[in-house]
Amino acid sequence: MRIGKARAHTNIALIKYWGKANNQLKLPQNSSLSMTLDAFYTDTNFQLLEQSTTTESSFSLNNVVQEPASSRRVFDYIETLQDRYRLPHDKFKIQTTNHVPTSAGLASSSSAFAALAQAFVAAYQLDVDKQELSRLARLGSGSATRSIYGGFVEWQKGTDDQDSIAMPIDEQPTIDLCLLAVEINFASKGISSTAGMQQVVNTSPYYGVWRTEAERGVIQMKQAIKANDFTAIGTLAERSALAMHALNFTANPPFTYLEPETIHAIKLVEQLRIQGIECYFTIDAGPNVKILCQLRNVKEITERFKEELGNVNIIKASFGPGVINLD
Amino acid sequence: MRIGKARAHTNIALIKYWGKANNQLKLPQNSSLSMTLDAFYTDTNFQLLEQSTTTESSFSLNNVVQEPASSRRVFDYIETLQDRYRLPHDKFKIQTTNHVPTSAGLASSSSAFAALAQAFVAAYQLDVDKQELSRLARLGSGSATRSIYGGFVEWQKGTDDQDSIAMPIDEQPTIDLCLLAVEINFASKGISSTAGMQQVVNTSPYYGVWRTEAERGVIQMKQAIKANDFTAIGTLAERSALAMHALNFTANPPFTYLEPETIHAIKLVEQLRIQGIECYFTIDAGPNVKILCQLRNVKEITERFKEELGNVNIIKASFGPGVINLD
Repeated sequence: MRIGKARAHTNIALIKYWGKANNQLKLPQNSSLSMTLDAFYTDTNFQLLEQSTTTESSFSLNNVVQEPASSRRVFDYIETLQDRYRLPHDKFKIQTTNHVPTSAGLASSSSAFAALAQAFVAAYQLDVDKQELSRLARLGSGSATRSIYGGFVEWQKGTDDQDSIAMPIDEQPTIDLCLLAVEINFASKGISSTAGMQQVVNTSPYYGVWRTEAERGVIQMKQAIKANDFTAIGTLAERSALAMHALNFTANPPFTYLEPETIHAIKLVEQLRIQGIECYFTIDAGPNVKILCQLRNVKEITERFKEELGNVNIIKASFGPGVINLD
Repeated sequence: MRIGKARAHTNIALIKYWGKANNQLKLPQNSSLSMTLDAFYTDTNFQLLEQSTTTESSFSLNNVVQEPASSRRVFDYIETLQDRYRLPHDKFKIQTTNHVPTSAGLASSSSAFAALAQAFVAAYQLDVDKQELSRLARLGSGSATRSIYGGFVEWQKGTDDQDSIAMPIDEQPTIDLCLLAVEINFASKGISSTAGMQQVVNTSPYYGVWRTEAERGVIQMKQAIKANDFTAIGTLAERSALAMHALNFTANPPFTYLEPETIHAIKLVEQLRIQGIECYFTIDAGPNVKILCQLRNVKEITERFKEELGNVNIIKASFGPGVINLD
């Protein structure tokens, strides 16, 4: 019985990915740069079933077997990987446990597809290096490509399947950098990130500038990381997040992930900074706000947010490792 | 005793002006298009003092004589106009009454400088046409140039003092179009519009696209007005407002006029629209939201806003006339 077990951590983009150049290969329109997070991860078992079995392939998430409609994306993904290595369409059993609170607005798909790619490779005992692994993860979910590595990671946009890969910038950063995920709960986040970025690519007259600026942002962020410059890292992250949300305002029709509480949180970050408590925010395709800060300020920032935003849940994270085999 | 008395109404830009090309002449970077509003206006008396008088020039606003620091901009403005017509620096007495609630976030400077320009011209009995009057108003405050005319007005950006003028598009529109000014009170609106637009012009990599898009917006809006197309007018107005606020996100450093209540109001407009109550929003350089709607929906929209935003004050306006002599 061949089985692969893997763990991958989520990542948060500090220079945002926003827009696909190729929907099937999930090639991005712009390079991005992320921080892999220790607090949020996915564990996945990928088990190949005997050819003689009458059991169908299955996918269970947090111990709940998923209905065909919910499994479709995962099944298609495995078939894509099997085809890539000219493997037969073996049946399989996937058991996934997500340690990512969805309400915190952190994409579990990044850790999920990174873990699944590694588990798949382990089960088939394929000889693939980490660059190839980052390609496989990308085919599942664009941002998953960055979860192959730990620490700071760049996703070079590339031009095709070969060169659109993740690259580690600093797998073991020494900089004091924490992320506080502030849970702002909402019934629905509205437009999905896939649909949102597509709408922007298709309709925003500002999109060309975004692409240029994102590449510049990656270069500047790499310099800031190299210099261990927390202020520059935070400033650049904020600008990238705001530019992404600005783009959504300029789509046709316009849309936004920002909620009143998001603006409230942004203003609080600004206020804390004026008061000498240095922190920055980043926001993904949802209303939640993530705060970049340093260890000595975690307690005070957490308290202030709970005071002002009504006892919201706040989860602290720092640098997480790349994908690992669990066996 | 020579005296001029004038009344001018404020206007709301549907295609926004955001960025100066010349600070002294207040030439804009982009053309804009506005609606002059009946509900908000300024009355101004401009009285020339006898040459023999020992009385100093004065400026009173709402019956309160203003301190020199608060009068400086107005005094400098009158001197500019006197120089323009090679007039001596006569002393004067200005009495202004603003019927514009500042808390509604409507720029009283647009009606104020339009009224003052007309009162000045009347006091000196100068023979100037409305185009020249729109130049004079512009020298006081950019947006005042549009308050010379009633109804829908275009401010053609031009390239110099001569051709940067307001032009009426439809002084007596027949379209059913109302504006509801929702008062969202805040202690401070933060960065001034002059400083905000300057920061955007100087630092946003997206500014070039804004300029192109604004000109396109003016053309599209003129078509929508010609077609009496409320849906198109509202849609274009929303897009222009959102693009302006998007730009502010992309300045360096970024800034925003949006407050939690602003987002709340935007979402409510969207929700009302989904429910079949057609309305649109526009937002200037402040947190307040103005709603574009039609007469039959005013009552319901007002009620819904009061329900959801905690009994805010809402003032209804429709088309106002151009500047007029009161004597």
